[in-house]
Amino acid sequence: MRILYHLPLSPYCRKVRLVLGEKRLPFEPMMERVWERRPEYLSANPAGTVPMLVEENGLSIPNSSVICEYLEEAYPDTPLLGRTLAERVEVRRLVAWFDEKFANEVTQNLLHEKVMKRIAGRGNPDGNALRAGYANIRYHMSYLDWLAETRKWLAGPTLSLADFAAASHLSCLDFINDVDWSKAPAAKDWYARMKSRPCFRPLLNDRVTGIVPPDHYADLDF
Amino acid sequence: MRILYHLPLSPYCRKVRLVLGEKRLPFEPMMERVWERRPEYLSANPAGTVPMLVEENGLSIPNSSVICEYLEEAYPDTPLLGRTLAERVEVRRLVAWFDEKFANEVTQNLLHEKVMKRIAGRGNPDGNALRAGYANIRYHMSYLDWLAETRKWLAGPTLSLADFAAASHLSCLDFINDVDWSKAPAAKDWYARMKSRPCFRPLLNDRVTGIVPPDHYADLDF
Repeated sequence: MRILYHLPLSPYCRKVRLVLGEKRLPFEPMMERVWERRPEYLSANPAGTVPMLVEENGLSIPNSSVICEYLEEAYPDTPLLGRTLAERVEVRRLVAWFDEKFANEVTQNLLHEKVMKRIAGRGNPDGNALRAGYANIRYHMSYLDWLAETRKWLAGPTLSLADFAAASHLSCLDFINDVDWSKAPAAKDWYARMKSRPCFRPLLNDRVTGIVPPDHYADLDF
Repeated sequence: MRILYHLPLSPYCRKVRLVLGEKRLPFEPMMERVWERRPEYLSANPAGTVPMLVEENGLSIPNSSVICEYLEEAYPDTPLLGRTLAERVEVRRLVAWFDEKFANEVTQNLLHEKVMKRIAGRGNPDGNALRAGYANIRYHMSYLDWLAETRKWLAGPTLSLADFAAASHLSCLDFINDVDWSKAPAAKDWYARMKSRPCFRPLLNDRVTGIVPPDHYADLDF
């Protein structure tokens, strides 16, 4: 059986879980506490990060971008990167937007400070980081709202990896109740559509010791 | 004419310059001082980062990973991502290794602190960051040396994007004389082969106001 080493509140792991689900590729999720630096894990993935996918033939694929490019090439049914060169540029641009810019400016400042630091026993949240995160999420939500208002899906007329990348970050932040959906109605409508996809269900059932997600987290009609 | 907006000491821009050169795709390099946040530039690339490639047909492609995937799809002669699925995983894994892990642990701590902060007028280098950078570069050089010793090119028997990603980071650090080649003879031999490729020549001619690279920087037989 295909194995995905992951952490439940990692947006990069969530993106891969969503893509595997959307492509109907069965897998066994395995929690990997990366901060314990397990030697067997490091020998398969010297970067020591999650996610890492291990295929039934033994091929180990670390890094969410590498995994998503691999899945697109290995399982081209249900294509998620777009068809034309321009479409593929726009999909990958938005994936990079969320996985790099949104991640650095929002996810890192809020999720990492409030949750990951505590789980890994690395101290208390830094107030400056939290303030920056709350300031940044506002303009990022405006951008998301604008994308959702002007396009059917974030990168254009078809559902793509851009939607899964964005929804992964948003779902982690929604888990800790840091998303104000009331100010971004088009983004909220888009996220409701994402949440109602079958591939999303496992994420809505995630539970993490010591954190209670808000009631609307798993509510499809929030 | 194809335009590449870039900064001379950005490893991500260097990677794209090398790939364009290797694929023999002519382009006009244009310096973009991203910290000035030029409105025309931000409207084409809201992330405000370099590199950004603009094709003759007007297609704007930001982000070095997005550009490299695009170039591979648009100009498949001189393929740089490998042939089989496993080869492509290894090439992309190493690109991510250098562009994410090496970048965070080494390039950011040394190049960003010593050069980019000064150019952008953002204060003095942080001593802790420099110490971390010098400590980290040692084990990264061992890994590079091991790759270079056990394989013809970093990802396997063929030259690939992994070599260009690694050489881009190394060349920036070599520009500020932060690479101790004497401890990594196989890496040094690999880097000498990279430097002697025609696509590398423009990088060796880069000059940056206020920084004098060491004599060996542009020497092919260093």
